[in-house]
Amino acid sequence: MKTAVYPGSFDPVTNGHLDIINRAAFLFDRLIVAVVRNPGKAPLFPMEERVALLQEVLAAHRNIEVQSFNGLLVDFAEKTGSSVIVKGLRALSDFDFEYQMALMNKKLKPSLETIFLMTSENFAFLSSSSVREIASLGGRVKGLVPSNVEKALASKFRNRKGMARGQDVAKD
Amino acid sequence: MKTAVYPGSFDPVTNGHLDIINRAAFLFDRLIVAVVRNPGKAPLFPMEERVALLQEVLAAHRNIEVQSFNGLLVDFAEKTGSSVIVKGLRALSDFDFEYQMALMNKKLKPSLETIFLMTSENFAFLSSSSVREIASLGGRVKGLVPSNVEKALASKFRNRKGMARGQDVAKD
Amino acid sequence: MKTAVYPGSFDPVTNGHLDIINRAAFLFDRLIVAVVRNPGKAPLFPMEERVALLQEVLAAHRNIEVQSFNGLLVDFAEKTGSSVIVKGLRALSDFDFEYQMALMNKKLKPSLETIFLMTSENFAFLSSSSVREIASLGGRVKGLVPSNVEKALASKFRNRKGMARGQDVAKD
Amino acid sequence: MKTAVYPGSFDPVTNGHLDIINRAAFLFDRLIVAVVRNPGKAPLFPMEERVALLQEVLAAHRNIEVQSFNGLLVDFAEKTGSSVIVKGLRALSDFDFEYQMALMNKKLKPSLETIFLMTSENFAFLSSSSVREIASLGGRVKGLVPSNVEKALASKFRNRKGMARGQDVAKD
Amino acid sequence: MKTAVYPGSFDPVTNGHLDIINRAAFLFDRLIVAVVRNPGKAPLFPMEERVALLQEVLAAHRNIEVQSFNGLLVDFAEKTGSSVIVKGLRALSDFDFEYQMALMNKKLKPSLETIFLMTSENFAFLSSSSVREIASLGGRVKGLVPSNVEKALASKFRNRKGMARGQDVAKD
Amino acid sequence: MKTAVYPGSFDPVTNGHLDIINRAAFLFDRLIVAVVRNPGKAPLFPMEERVALLQEVLAAHRNIEVQSFNGLLVDFAEKTGSSVIVKGLRALSDFDFEYQMALMNKKLKPSLETIFLMTSENFAFLSSSSVREIASLGGRVKGLVPSNVEKALASKFRNRKGMARGQDVAKD
Repeated sequence: MKTAVYPGSFDPVTNGHLDIINRAAFLFDRLIVAVVRNPGKAPLFPMEERVALLQEVLAAHRNIEVQSFNGLLVDFAEKTGSSVIVKGLRALSDFDFEYQMALMNKKLKPSLETIFLMTSENFAFLSSSSVREIASLGGRVKGLVPSNVEKALASKFRNRKGMARGQDVAKD
Repeated sequence: MKTAVYPGSFDPVTNGHLDIINRAAFLFDRLIVAVVRNPGKAPLFPMEERVALLQEVLAAHRNIEVQSFNGLLVDFAEKTGSSVIVKGLRALSDFDFEYQMALMNKKLKPSLETIFLMTSENFAFLSSSSVREIASLGGRVKGLVPSNVEKALASKFRNRKGMARGQDVAKD
Repeated sequence: MKTAVYPGSFDPVTNGHLDIINRAAFLFDRLIVAVVRNPGKAPLFPMEERVALLQEVLAAHRNIEVQSFNGLLVDFAEKTGSSVIVKGLRALSDFDFEYQMALMNKKLKPSLETIFLMTSENFAFLSSSSVREIASLGGRVKGLVPSNVEKALASKFRNRKGMARGQDVAKD
Repeated sequence: MKTAVYPGSFDPVTNGHLDIINRAAFLFDRLIVAVVRNPGKAPLFPMEERVALLQEVLAAHRNIEVQSFNGLLVDFAEKTGSSVIVKGLRALSDFDFEYQMALMNKKLKPSLETIFLMTSENFAFLSSSSVREIASLGGRVKGLVPSNVEKALASKFRNRKGMARGQDVAKD
Repeated sequence: MKTAVYPGSFDPVTNGHLDIINRAAFLFDRLIVAVVRNPGKAPLFPMEERVALLQEVLAAHRNIEVQSFNGLLVDFAEKTGSSVIVKGLRALSDFDFEYQMALMNKKLKPSLETIFLMTSENFAFLSSSSVREIASLGGRVKGLVPSNVEKALASKFRNRKGMARGQDVAKD
Repeated sequence: MKTAVYPGSFDPVTNGHLDIINRAAFLFDRLIVAVVRNPGKAPLFPMEERVALLQEVLAAHRNIEVQSFNGLLVDFAEKTGSSVIVKGLRALSDFDFEYQMALMNKKLKPSLETIFLMTSENFAFLSSSSVREIASLGGRVKGLVPSNVEKALASKFRNRKGMARGQDVAKD
């Protein structure tokens, strides 16, 4: 039996993530969606909510579990009996970062394999940060995230309309 | 009549931006230079000063307006009757980010077209952040920005020489 | 006699940096390893410790000096009589940033040449930030950094195990 | 009145090309689809057939013309009164080549502007060469090309089934 | 039971290919190494020899088969009951091409999944074409290919020393 | 004394090559411009003419030699006492290919160092193939190549105007 782990911050989970999750769950006997405790800066959704949203969406899948973790991914994989890390690659911009992570994790634990699934072209533009941005600016995220996340975002931003930030325009 | 919008934070406007503005103003009947209210972090120049510097430089152009905005770019385009977004592409590093933005904006409003102009090779290295960096370290920005910006930077950093940060060296 | 400068934040120095330093020291008569005073955000190691760790590792090399600096790199090069900047390029992700820096420095001082050495494939995944990350999460950095840095990291993180951040997982 | 030229070999025209053509025809008063006479190697479709297939597909558009040409694109633009070159950019792999062409054409004729439209994500994978490949291997190109091209490909490959080449597998 | 197919021209098989094959054979119940009949131009090794060299090297692996094929990869996958395509990604240069292939194959047969394994950094520089080049120029390929391929290359080039081509120098 | 080798096909030498040659000659005691005998396909200029054009342009430089070679570059470096390979990197498109070559050459001869100089932005668009293309189509190459090459191209193409190929338009 092969167990794979699909790690991320899922702040929040998007339809792009779900596409990868469904495809990975087809490839392996058991898939652990591993929500990282603390992705560097303050998340929009606290860990418990990120896990709950994922569990709700994935409830019907028998071979998928949602777990939170902290520490090194290679240690989490060991503890859960995972022999494979699954990552999604978008056409745009993920490659170098992911390759570096994959090489580093291989250095830390050579027996742990990383495989990459390419994001469907429909989700090429989609990221948790763009979803947060659009929602914070009052834009419509239907079709970008599952419906429970859509509701969670709406309630999150109901009282914050003023914070509109325009990060969809410029990175410089 | 076609109206195009050229969005950015312009903190401050550089000669690379002006090159794109001039070329875009030739392509369309009316060009709105849209200064985003809040590009994520504290700007060096406040919104009012960024708009004023642009207006001063562009005063002679009949078909160019400078406006500030917040919220979603697609909403601003709608409100101003713009059917085209203009973006500049530097050979280096802008492509993935801009492609993602373009796809996202298309998802949000399919009728709004994004076109890209490639930055002249003379400005390939030039960004608002490198200009801020050089000026903050006491370097010479003549030829990189219009002369009113050169003066504004000089007065901005006159009393802050000590803050030199050396970000021109390392990103790691 | 040709003097070259190899600038960086070295927070901390890695075996990838040392590979570049050794190869650059073979190419030029004198090599200055220039530690930038302040790489934008709070460093893990203060400037004095970064310099000391480098000096310890490089003590045996006659034609290598370690210096700290602030201000513009082109000014530092002028002051130290350096005619060449040396930069390392990893296969992954450094290229655009470094090219931009090289063009900008050439604009600021045309006579100063920038040369690039490509990082050995063994260090393709290695960066100061990944080393900090792994060490902060209790991972093993042996083989990634010189042994004095290994010890410095261990003592640095002995009392902070709880801060584990999981940045090895997600950038989104 | 602004005339733009959209150059290519169109061997054969794909739905990705048509997407760009339609969007460019909306931006400018007149669009010339310029079929290059001889794209380096023997085309699958001779020039006359490539032009005819395009004319058939584009017959309903008042402001679009199809012309063949040889020689330098900048000369063709001059002769036809075009002030803009339109190019499509796929997320994958076109950027460097197109940037180089744009800079070169600017060098040859500074007043001629090149603008880029990004290919819809639905066509990110689509190129004339992949269409030729699939058709030559007996695959189905419905949805990838207009229906007259679909028929032309079918008749082209009816007698050549044996030439299947498997270039869809490896580039090494 | 999951069957995966690893397609390529293998002209000749390298140690980089073998690394991917071994890792893929660990992930799936059955792995078919699919040698494409005709990779566009005349191969150095005829199909029969490419298959034979692979079979010899992989003889000890119970769950690996070597087959030749022509036609579309999606048809071959169907015929052999394969639900997964495995591709190797080198840090350098493969990404765009492979992504395009993956999207195209998904278009042709949505149920067929493509997964990517990243080449070990030790083989980042290695390709069949570089091996052919080095061998043709009298260079040493030990460590780059399995020993039976080393011998096959030696006998292939024994009488052709004069053809040395210097393609290791310039692509322009 | 350090000798460096700058290899290429120089078919023909461009002002971009000369920029790299001049800068490399400043860095090392002796620079060998190594013209590869046979860059894969039939050159426009035969070897003898390529060498002669380079020698003419570089006649005034005391520490630069022009030599032709065939075989492996690492062997040529050994024979000529060169400890360094110099390569030029354009912002666009050279990086992956050059990195691969550098790693391969390091594998073949670890003591031989490869350094990269970045092409001036003025020559970012310039390659021997684009020069051949423009000249073959009757375009003006003044400013792109030294004047003796300009003349050589003119006489080469005087009788071939009809071959115009339009490769400046499409790569697909």
